Amino acid sequence: MSGNTFGRLFRLTTFGESHGVGLGGIVDGCPSGVPISEEMIQHELDRRRPGSGTGGTTRKEPDQVRLWSGVFEGQTTGTPIAFSIENTNQRSGDYGPLAEIWRPGHADMAYDAKYGIRDFRGGGRSSGRETVARVAGGAIARALLARSGIRIRAYTQELGGIVAPEASFASRDAAAGRPYCAPCDEIVEIWENRVRSVRGQGDTLGGVVRIEAFNVPAGLGEPVFDKLDAVLAMALMSVGAVKGVEVGDGFAAARSLGSQNNDALFPGGTALNPGNPSTNHCGGILGGISSGQPIVLTVAVKPIPSIAREQHSVDRNGQPVSLRVGGRHDICAIPRIVPVLEAMTALTLADALLLQRRMTRDGERA
Amino acid sequence: MSGNTFGRLFRLTTFGESHGVGLGGIVDGCPSGVPISEEMIQHELDRRRPGSGTGGTTRKEPDQVRLWSGVFEGQTTGTPIAFSIENTNQRSGDYGPLAEIWRPGHADMAYDAKYGIRDFRGGGRSSGRETVARVAGGAIARALLARSGIRIRAYTQELGGIVAPEASFASRDAAAGRPYCAPCDEIVEIWENRVRSVRGQGDTLGGVVRIEAFNVPAGLGEPVFDKLDAVLAMALMSVGAVKGVEVGDGFAAARSLGSQNNDALFPGGTALNPGNPSTNHCGGILGGISSGQPIVLTVAVKPIPSIAREQHSVDRNGQPVSLRVGGRHDICAIPRIVPVLEAMTALTLADALLLQRRMTRDGERA
Amino acid sequence: MSGNTFGRLFRLTTFGESHGVGLGGIVDGCPSGVPISEEMIQHELDRRRPGSGTGGTTRKEPDQVRLWSGVFEGQTTGTPIAFSIENTNQRSGDYGPLAEIWRPGHADMAYDAKYGIRDFRGGGRSSGRETVARVAGGAIARALLARSGIRIRAYTQELGGIVAPEASFASRDAAAGRPYCAPCDEIVEIWENRVRSVRGQGDTLGGVVRIEAFNVPAGLGEPVFDKLDAVLAMALMSVGAVKGVEVGDGFAAARSLGSQNNDALFPGGTALNPGNPSTNHCGGILGGISSGQPIVLTVAVKPIPSIAREQHSVDRNGQPVSLRVGGRHDICAIPRIVPVLEAMTALTLADALLLQRRMTRDGERA
Amino acid sequence: MSGNTFGRLFRLTTFGESHGVGLGGIVDGCPSGVPISEEMIQHELDRRRPGSGTGGTTRKEPDQVRLWSGVFEGQTTGTPIAFSIENTNQRSGDYGPLAEIWRPGHADMAYDAKYGIRDFRGGGRSSGRETVARVAGGAIARALLARSGIRIRAYTQELGGIVAPEASFASRDAAAGRPYCAPCDEIVEIWENRVRSVRGQGDTLGGVVRIEAFNVPAGLGEPVFDKLDAVLAMALMSVGAVKGVEVGDGFAAARSLGSQNNDALFPGGTALNPGNPSTNHCGGILGGISSGQPIVLTVAVKPIPSIAREQHSVDRNGQPVSLRVGGRHDICAIPRIVPVLEAMTALTLADALLLQRRMTRDGERA
Repeated sequence: MSGNTFGRLFRLTTFGESHGVGLGGIVDGCPSGVPISEEMIQHELDRRRPGSGTGGTTRKEPDQVRLWSGVFEGQTTGTPIAFSIENTNQRSGDYGPLAEIWRPGHADMAYDAKYGIRDFRGGGRSSGRETVARVAGGAIARALLARSGIRIRAYTQELGGIVAPEASFASRDAAAGRPYCAPCDEIVEIWENRVRSVRGQGDTLGGVVRIEAFNVPAGLGEPVFDKLDAVLAMALMSVGAVKGVEVGDGFAAARSLGSQNNDALFPGGTALNPGNPSTNHCGGILGGISSGQPIVLTVAVKPIPSIAREQHSVDRNGQPVSLRVGGRHDICAIPRIVPVLEAMTALTLADALLLQRRMTRDGERA
Repeated sequence: MSGNTFGRLFRLTTFGESHGVGLGGIVDGCPSGVPISEEMIQHELDRRRPGSGTGGTTRKEPDQVRLWSGVFEGQTTGTPIAFSIENTNQRSGDYGPLAEIWRPGHADMAYDAKYGIRDFRGGGRSSGRETVARVAGGAIARALLARSGIRIRAYTQELGGIVAPEASFASRDAAAGRPYCAPCDEIVEIWENRVRSVRGQGDTLGGVVRIEAFNVPAGLGEPVFDKLDAVLAMALMSVGAVKGVEVGDGFAAARSLGSQNNDALFPGGTALNPGNPSTNHCGGILGGISSGQPIVLTVAVKPIPSIAREQHSVDRNGQPVSLRVGGRHDICAIPRIVPVLEAMTALTLADALLLQRRMTRDGERA
Repeated sequence: MSGNTFGRLFRLTTFGESHGVGLGGIVDGCPSGVPISEEMIQHELDRRRPGSGTGGTTRKEPDQVRLWSGVFEGQTTGTPIAFSIENTNQRSGDYGPLAEIWRPGHADMAYDAKYGIRDFRGGGRSSGRETVARVAGGAIARALLARSGIRIRAYTQELGGIVAPEASFASRDAAAGRPYCAPCDEIVEIWENRVRSVRGQGDTLGGVVRIEAFNVPAGLGEPVFDKLDAVLAMALMSVGAVKGVEVGDGFAAARSLGSQNNDALFPGGTALNPGNPSTNHCGGILGGISSGQPIVLTVAVKPIPSIAREQHSVDRNGQPVSLRVGGRHDICAIPRIVPVLEAMTALTLADALLLQRRMTRDGERA
Repeated sequence: MSGNTFGRLFRLTTFGESHGVGLGGIVDGCPSGVPISEEMIQHELDRRRPGSGTGGTTRKEPDQVRLWSGVFEGQTTGTPIAFSIENTNQRSGDYGPLAEIWRPGHADMAYDAKYGIRDFRGGGRSSGRETVARVAGGAIARALLARSGIRIRAYTQELGGIVAPEASFASRDAAAGRPYCAPCDEIVEIWENRVRSVRGQGDTLGGVVRIEAFNVPAGLGEPVFDKLDAVLAMALMSVGAVKGVEVGDGFAAARSLGSQNNDALFPGGTALNPGNPSTNHCGGILGGISSGQPIVLTVAVKPIPSIAREQHSVDRNGQPVSLRVGGRHDICAIPRIVPVLEAMTALTLADALLLQRRMTRDGERA
């Protein structure tokens, strides 16, 4: 109810502040028998770490995960899986001056309005650092999904207003290995220059990320209110910097005609693809239920609000202040946000997969 | 869990198929003492009814609401408020031929994949007709919000690819009275022509709707996963034809610089507007919590998939069929979807408002 | 959240006041393909109706159920199943004088404290009449359970302080056909005399009911907090007059030694009875999980608080009043409460059964 | 859904196995501004620790709590409060021989039936050791309740079949300081002898505990299904050894007449006690809503199933085994279960208190 739990059957509850003792979470509802290890989780966490790319912060966060429970002899037991990541590099001294100031574009004012009290060190709970627990939970979801052959990937479509060229399926598959999770090699240097230039102006920038899920069986998602696309939209929009979500053609569908936007069906369907559609304008979801086609989601990521330029603001007492945010900040949430978006997609699909199992009777519809 | 309930403290559970006995719902969690009448609900339902506009269907649905419980002497008692709307004009004979066919762009295939059985009459539960219960529930939410001065409005920004010109605040306020919920008079005839032309081709079209909420106090919304924008995105994306949701500047924010996208703060804030910001790029939500500014949401509505043109499809047995959907269909979900989007916004805000009250102690932070 | 929904995957939400338009509910989460009819539900409702027994009221309630949705061609479709029962015999004039008075032992005072407003006609939402919707929902749960061979029965163990003699399994099976749901014929007249005598004094009485569930597979229930016995205790204690719940030996277990209370295990177990225990002190639940043995629950039912004797009380303004409750009241909640207790047990087990299905993978553990 | 979360607005999610890395939990939904410290939590944990009493185990568990988040400068911030307790004394070698054996009266068989895999070390998740996280969470709930003046206490009424004599209010208040949480000094030696004798036979015993809550305002609890007594029954029955729960007079009410069981109302009520009742047969709850009277609950605690006597059982393969459970076991769950029962009561009331705040408008009904 208070917003720190995601999911219905596969549930992740997270905790932790940017500069507190540490962060972590509990996954409750993962079925027994799923192979899980600290290494698997660590692998995903390492993807989220500040990289060597020009857009990254210089803060060092080893982000070492520790598993507390729910895994026995390498397998889940069906009991809650708790994990923690200690904050080892807190330097809260950096943030002292910001204790009383509301930073524009940040949640400082909103937290004060909501709670009347705020852990101001590095943004506290509102810091992007909370996503470390999403990624750890998502790693467990991915392990569950992998058993059903479901795979999730993401790449950056646009950075600082520069759209990447169309890239092949295989090239997009290699995005995780490129700077900015770029979908192809050609765009990397162009984006690099854009980032460098914006950084030079003390400014920050945003971008657009596409997430795809493959091998999702038809039938997942709960109409009416809990449509699969609705829950995915919530999952993705809950990530700090996200300001827009599209399913399939998204806003372009609003400009299409029905005859263009409908995906015609053809014979030859399979369990994964019952209607064997030739196109995928719908993004793999019809009436809120997965259709067996790949699920396609697009997300708008706003620029990071911590800029190194002078800004007008007020403090908690309403007095005008002028501030320039220093510190060890990213200038773009991309590419660090990419594994977070994948994690949220994985958590949503794992949950939908388990929910659909209630339909099974004696293996009939498994 | 099965998708027919929306909300946490202010909860709407709905039921009903397009051509069954009727539709309705239960609102559980509305506090006592809110004035409610069948007339108030009927007023909202009438806005959703097929209108005389060129885009509308010719099906007549009186949609007469009946209140069963939870209201005593004109006020809510705190117990569940049930309502029903009987289906009086079922003509299920119309749909007989579609029993075995999966219509492209519809949920037919997905429902069969999920449930293995389907009430095929008029789309059954997947019909847009289910939104009648959302609107009725939303009317109760609006009554609750009205006591706190919160007001919601919506208008169409774009139809069939044609964007409306900028309109004044007052002109947008009058949108509900114009065809297509147009934000100004000038665009109506242009859109009318566009609709007429597309209808003539047996095709359908979509559009873009903007929803705004005023007087929302700062502090609503639950970080981390249940951010106010995340829940709103889910609420809106759960409406049948919606394929994209933006908060504030949305995808445009992804192309902005941080210095452009941040809303500077100035002295002179009030409870409703603590930081007194001059701009509203964030759409009234910071860190998932309402900021006191107007909440601004934009939604992509896809074209209606029932087109009067020949389409390729398959039946339940995978055999190829060719179909042309006749019947009494709208060619655009706009404007009938507009009060539905308002209702979902109202339900979300009513729920967030009640949730925030848990922070109150002895009236301290009310 | 507001208390009118029961269950996690198999969810019943109910509505309705004693003297309002009617009562009813929505079952959401029943899988598709379960045979359901109005007749099945009506059969259970008729068991709850005021009977011809000496303990019953003289109020006539036809309690005709109407199904609105979720059932197509005799089978559930997976969409919400709504039902309603109209109040046809309201006579609210009877209750006028009680509008301002708090009846001892009733919820009048508590509702006023909670809601500040109250539908006083016949107790409104706090009337035992709300259980009609539980029984209807329970009938749907029973239909689901029947497919897995699970059967629930209940009988009265004690009435007005008089304990029934031990009865054979077959005799207890016939309880539903006897007055007071007596477990054997011998006790009926004795109880009848007790009831007659107490009624003659203008007083009321209570009793003890045992509920048993057979063929419940081992493995249902969710430790830690949602243990099967914990959820059953909640389900049963939520029925108006219930003041105590025991699982298995209950309070007698508190007086046993460990060596007496443990159920020894023996070879020869089956899927339904893995450890083949010889005794069932635990009541079919170990560590909150069903063991495969019959589930055994015992419930204390308090006397009906509406007595025809003079009582001291106060009105809403705190003024002393003296009242004698007339009207058409039962003098004992037994036997009408018995099908309600069965319904709550059925709802709990149906929910636990669906939840356990999430463990299934490709039919492996079905 | 998977049973490791308790509460609706004030939510505790726990994790941990008896012999894993550690145990802990997350409290989500505690409002901001509540004073919390590790010392407060440690104080409650120390009450649950194996004591020097004759009934206790000889295992040493320092149970040192660590707070990870949600508390800043000594106050809750409204964000999740995570805590952990490391297992420092695991000695899992003790349990090796039990890996394949199902212990009678334990959850071993049931866990295998449910999950197909089991952390057998010391009972894993089914060990009473999981209650350490309940007590820690309950300490936070108590801090919240204390701000509203609500106080919870408990004492043992009966041990090994020997009922304690009636004790004064003040004497019962001192129970926490006596062995076995005895309500008076006189009974201590008698119980001590009983325990000694049963231990000498290699056997174990149970008892009855009463829990009382004072200063609970009228109006808490959510009819119909989430009645305050229903949720309390679930909360208490979810504690491992509990087999029965009574509210107020409990099973004795089933033997009363209505005229005896009703609590007459008198003038002179206050906000805490609106009807000023002279008796409290109802146990402080009417119609599922707190009446302002003290809440009175009674709980049956079964004997500990680990006995040092030879028992028949089977192993996972269904082969007969004979076992005698050695190790460092308590012979009675009392008194260690007492703070656990208090904690569950505190968690339930904290949750109900926050839920009721949704009724507040502008402080009107606070």
